[in-house]
Amino acid sequence: MIKITLPDGGIKEYTEGSTPMDVAKSISEGLARNVISAKFNETTVETTTPLHEDGSLVLYTWNNKEGKKAFWHSTSHIVAQALENLYPGIKLTIGPAIDNGFYYDVDFGEHTISEKDFPMIEKRAMEIARGKHDYKMRPVSKADALAFYKSQHNEYKVELIENLEDGTITFCDHDTFTDLCRGGHIPNTGIVKAIKILSVAGAYWRGDENKPQLTRVYGISFPKQKELTEYLELLEEAKKRDHRKLGRELELFMFSKKVGQGLPLWLPKGAALRERLEDFLKKAQKKAGYEMVATPHIGQKELYVTSGHYAKYGEDSFQPIRTPKEDEEFLLKPMNCPHHCEIYNSRPFSYRDLPKRYAEFGTVYRYEQSGELHGLTRVRGFTQDDAHIFCTNDQLDQEFKNVIDLSLYVLGSLGFDDFTAQVSIRDLDTPEKYIGSIENWEKAEKAIINAAEAKGLDFVIEKGEAAFYGPKLDFMIKDALGRSWQLGTIQVDYNLPERFDLTYKGSDNEEHRPVMIHRAPFGSMERFIALLLEHTGGNFPLWLIPEQAIVLPVSEKHEKYAEKVLNSLENNEIRALIDNRNETVGKKIREAEMNKIPFMLIVGDSEEKDKTISVRRHGGDDLGTIQISDFTHLVTKEINSTLKSF
Amino acid sequence: MIKITLPDGGIKEYTEGSTPMDVAKSISEGLARNVISAKFNETTVETTTPLHEDGSLVLYTWNNKEGKKAFWHSTSHIVAQALENLYPGIKLTIGPAIDNGFYYDVDFGEHTISEKDFPMIEKRAMEIARGKHDYKMRPVSKADALAFYKSQHNEYKVELIENLEDGTITFCDHDTFTDLCRGGHIPNTGIVKAIKILSVAGAYWRGDENKPQLTRVYGISFPKQKELTEYLELLEEAKKRDHRKLGRELELFMFSKKVGQGLPLWLPKGAALRERLEDFLKKAQKKAGYEMVATPHIGQKELYVTSGHYAKYGEDSFQPIRTPKEDEEFLLKPMNCPHHCEIYNSRPFSYRDLPKRYAEFGTVYRYEQSGELHGLTRVRGFTQDDAHIFCTNDQLDQEFKNVIDLSLYVLGSLGFDDFTAQVSIRDLDTPEKYIGSIENWEKAEKAIINAAEAKGLDFVIEKGEAAFYGPKLDFMIKDALGRSWQLGTIQVDYNLPERFDLTYKGSDNEEHRPVMIHRAPFGSMERFIALLLEHTGGNFPLWLIPEQAIVLPVSEKHEKYAEKVLNSLENNEIRALIDNRNETVGKKIREAEMNKIPFMLIVGDSEEKDKTISVRRHGGDDLGTIQISDFTHLVTKEINSTLKSF
Repeated sequence: MIKITLPDGGIKEYTEGSTPMDVAKSISEGLARNVISAKFNETTVETTTPLHEDGSLVLYTWNNKEGKKAFWHSTSHIVAQALENLYPGIKLTIGPAIDNGFYYDVDFGEHTISEKDFPMIEKRAMEIARGKHDYKMRPVSKADALAFYKSQHNEYKVELIENLEDGTITFCDHDTFTDLCRGGHIPNTGIVKAIKILSVAGAYWRGDENKPQLTRVYGISFPKQKELTEYLELLEEAKKRDHRKLGRELELFMFSKKVGQGLPLWLPKGAALRERLEDFLKKAQKKAGYEMVATPHIGQKELYVTSGHYAKYGEDSFQPIRTPKEDEEFLLKPMNCPHHCEIYNSRPFSYRDLPKRYAEFGTVYRYEQSGELHGLTRVRGFTQDDAHIFCTNDQLDQEFKNVIDLSLYVLGSLGFDDFTAQVSIRDLDTPEKYIGSIENWEKAEKAIINAAEAKGLDFVIEKGEAAFYGPKLDFMIKDALGRSWQLGTIQVDYNLPERFDLTYKGSDNEEHRPVMIHRAPFGSMERFIALLLEHTGGNFPLWLIPEQAIVLPVSEKHEKYAEKVLNSLENNEIRALIDNRNETVGKKIREAEMNKIPFMLIVGDSEEKDKTISVRRHGGDDLGTIQISDFTHLVTKEINSTLKSF
Repeated sequence: MIKITLPDGGIKEYTEGSTPMDVAKSISEGLARNVISAKFNETTVETTTPLHEDGSLVLYTWNNKEGKKAFWHSTSHIVAQALENLYPGIKLTIGPAIDNGFYYDVDFGEHTISEKDFPMIEKRAMEIARGKHDYKMRPVSKADALAFYKSQHNEYKVELIENLEDGTITFCDHDTFTDLCRGGHIPNTGIVKAIKILSVAGAYWRGDENKPQLTRVYGISFPKQKELTEYLELLEEAKKRDHRKLGRELELFMFSKKVGQGLPLWLPKGAALRERLEDFLKKAQKKAGYEMVATPHIGQKELYVTSGHYAKYGEDSFQPIRTPKEDEEFLLKPMNCPHHCEIYNSRPFSYRDLPKRYAEFGTVYRYEQSGELHGLTRVRGFTQDDAHIFCTNDQLDQEFKNVIDLSLYVLGSLGFDDFTAQVSIRDLDTPEKYIGSIENWEKAEKAIINAAEAKGLDFVIEKGEAAFYGPKLDFMIKDALGRSWQLGTIQVDYNLPERFDLTYKGSDNEEHRPVMIHRAPFGSMERFIALLLEHTGGNFPLWLIPEQAIVLPVSEKHEKYAEKVLNSLENNEIRALIDNRNETVGKKIREAEMNKIPFMLIVGDSEEKDKTISVRRHGGDDLGTIQISDFTHLVTKEINSTLKSF
């Protein structure tokens, strides 16, 4: 008998040789139907793998990330088989699961494939899937494995096997197809009910541009046809909401090859949007007792040696800047914190002066490989809505709560209601990994969890995910494709106060070490605006959008009245513009729609006569002909309903 | 006879061998009394130098820069003689005139001198001056010159002479003193009526730290004792107004050794001041049709190769930034214009879209040697209130006028009434030095001069001072020491539109080249704030100062009423704070005075009872006990009187 520990802590005994599927069946028939993957003692196993020792077992279904991974990886075997059937002589290389689906890198030889071939591949793959073939793992000797692929003239698999140790090699069979594989499959092909080939792209063997170019076939699969349909709809919507596309269409930002990749240039409308967001946060921060500072974008290498950033990131980042005549080296600042520590250190503080909250919209530069860059979400230069709070350990609890309040205000005012939080704490088994006293860590972790609970956050606690310098809380938000992004962050730091020898005089007249909180409710202006674009599809909240209304005179003779309307709006602090080009109202409306201006105010003869405006809402709703005062009231009401109070 | 052309264009004949002094005498006795230096055919001569050929002669008095230079250089001979008398055996090296006075670098051997020795040196120097000794130049052979200084064991002068060509060497004698000298002296020592030794400092021989260290003796002299007295008063005042001192006292900015020299860090009060200045200009710019953009602080080297900045400044500036994995090189941006050109180039423009005005508070980085750095006036990183106007040649005139209006609004609102302007145009003799068509240059120069005249500027035209890419207009402002600084600038540019191949579609449907205007009314935020600090002594205009008033409760029991006063002020948009520390009102007033807060509002029993405030003006004026509404009226009135309308 072997003892199996389940995630809920329960321990059950099973006959030696029982499989994860046997365990699932012993729990419930329903679970057995849904279980598609398993992990035994932290190692991925098949649901059919016999277990021969005591250990902890986790069973995964489609609803787990690990379950999806097994599902998609298993589908890559099916697609590989389909490709071999359809294109005899091709050479398979590797086919892993990725975040959304899977890919297989294939040397197609003389064949070429394109989008028009996808339906045929999908059809053949589904035929195979419907055969309900079991996935069967078997060990194979290195010699046999090499012989198998040499006979197929597949130099890629041969190269892979040559790098493996004899005795560790396994093949996976299903139907008539065999693949070199470490494991992690669903029970059988029949579970896969829908397969979609998404795209093909070039990819070098082993990512090395000096090696042969292969074709990467991307796909995704689902246990229900309906889920595929929904996914394709989401994909279509995501394409429309892609922040790069919207950013171009709304003329918010651009990239220039000459300036350099990953370095956004903000166009007038984007710069105005950014400024409004910054002003919004500045106002709230002022109320919350923050003080703005401004620091340079470079610092001597020495500064980052002191902070520890150089040792950690120096070699992988932008390289030092030398000067022509002096023995100095500067770095582009990757973080604002060392600069703020120097500001703190420029004068003495007593406990009565704390907390000290220094805020800066600080632009930082971090090197990313060009392949990693993506629109505004992964860039080489970005502006953090950064602040550092220097406080006593006793103040940590309240400061943390205050920062959560500020973060909730920011997210709420921008319509992000669907977010989660993650609290990252120590791994108690490895205390040597962390700096700072155990007493302070306990206090800080308790403060964070208390604050998260007190503020009613939907949060998970991740053990061992804390930084070495302190615990933290991150806000996670989903983009149009359902991918999670970290936006706002609140981090406790015991490290930098040590490294910069920061002190304050306590009520006991002794010098003490303050604790630091790093926080950024937006995270970065670039990533936040990207997410906001995808979240709203470019229809920003009314309070934020740079142009709230556009006045559209029906003809030239209504221009004067239109100007009056504009003036009246401006006096009521409504941001509006006028379109007095010599174009039809129809065309003006179409362009205003494209520019996603929330309100179109049409003025013609009757409006001028009655001193009214005809209001059309972006998207087509006709709000009728109303007084200007009614309109300003309507705008104020909508703004007050989104812009939370702080 | 020789023909002498005078600056007014008049030509007179003189006997060959006549001296500049003879010419002065022939013009007027008054001029002859005041003339102290001269230039003949663009070469500095003595007033006693016999002239042997036709040529143009300029006579200088104390009121000319060149006159002062001769005066101060001549004084350095007197001081050198005094030092030799007082410290036998010292070795003299060089003793030039500088912007404000002169210095002499001396190897004092076993002697040391310090401030307490200055009166003795001044006394001896004035004894020599009063001897009314003529300065007499004489040619000397290289051999004789070397022999003279070798006999004195002066290896410095020997080294200087060794680098001179035989036949070009001259000595200058006065009294018993002889010095190696190229010339440029006043007639005799008696003209010097006041000499002040200002300071001593270390200086390496020939500025090379591997060579012997000398003592640099700084001094200044005047033709009247009264002028020295005035200068010393100015110096005293300037010390008080030194922006570095005020910046520290008012907690506006700091420097950190670790961050790096020449890289200011803005403290909360300074950052708030800067933001207010920026907001002030932003508002005016918005009215004037500018659009804000935001661009990165680095760009690929390629960008600056295209713009021409790399060829011109690359080697003397911050060196390129490399990346760890890719073959890319970036530079810290020394200017914002290349970035704005890339923005212009990101979409097509028609003549109807122009002018396009892109503005950015862009922080740029330029390497300066550490010895050149000075507070905020010479830094390595600074923020330009930059904008680039892209317009047609026909729009240049109006755009230039608009920019002058904006600049005058900025200077006027900040109390800078004493400024001059300099219009820099081509040197018509060297047309090959300039880019752009002659027709456009003529148009642009005319546009600038017209605009300067139309706007009633006090300006001078400097021929040959234009940049190679276009003519310009600079605003010059004097600091506390009377030194001129260039702040605002407006420059026409024909070069970058060529280099970036910028175009617009004209009404003729053809592609045309726009012209660019670079402009910055502040110049840079750093230098402007430095000058503003020295100009106002830290007493900023009321509209600008971050804290306009401070409420001072007499005791704890008046705090509640003080809060009410504060609220009422805030509702009237007066920026105020409260000092409710447990200190005496006297101490609170003293600190508010030190912090240069314009109004102190004292509230005690009687004020609370009568719902009034007792108002004290910074500097001590008691404005009496008044209603809060009277006070807000007073503040508004003062603001309206300084903040010009735009």
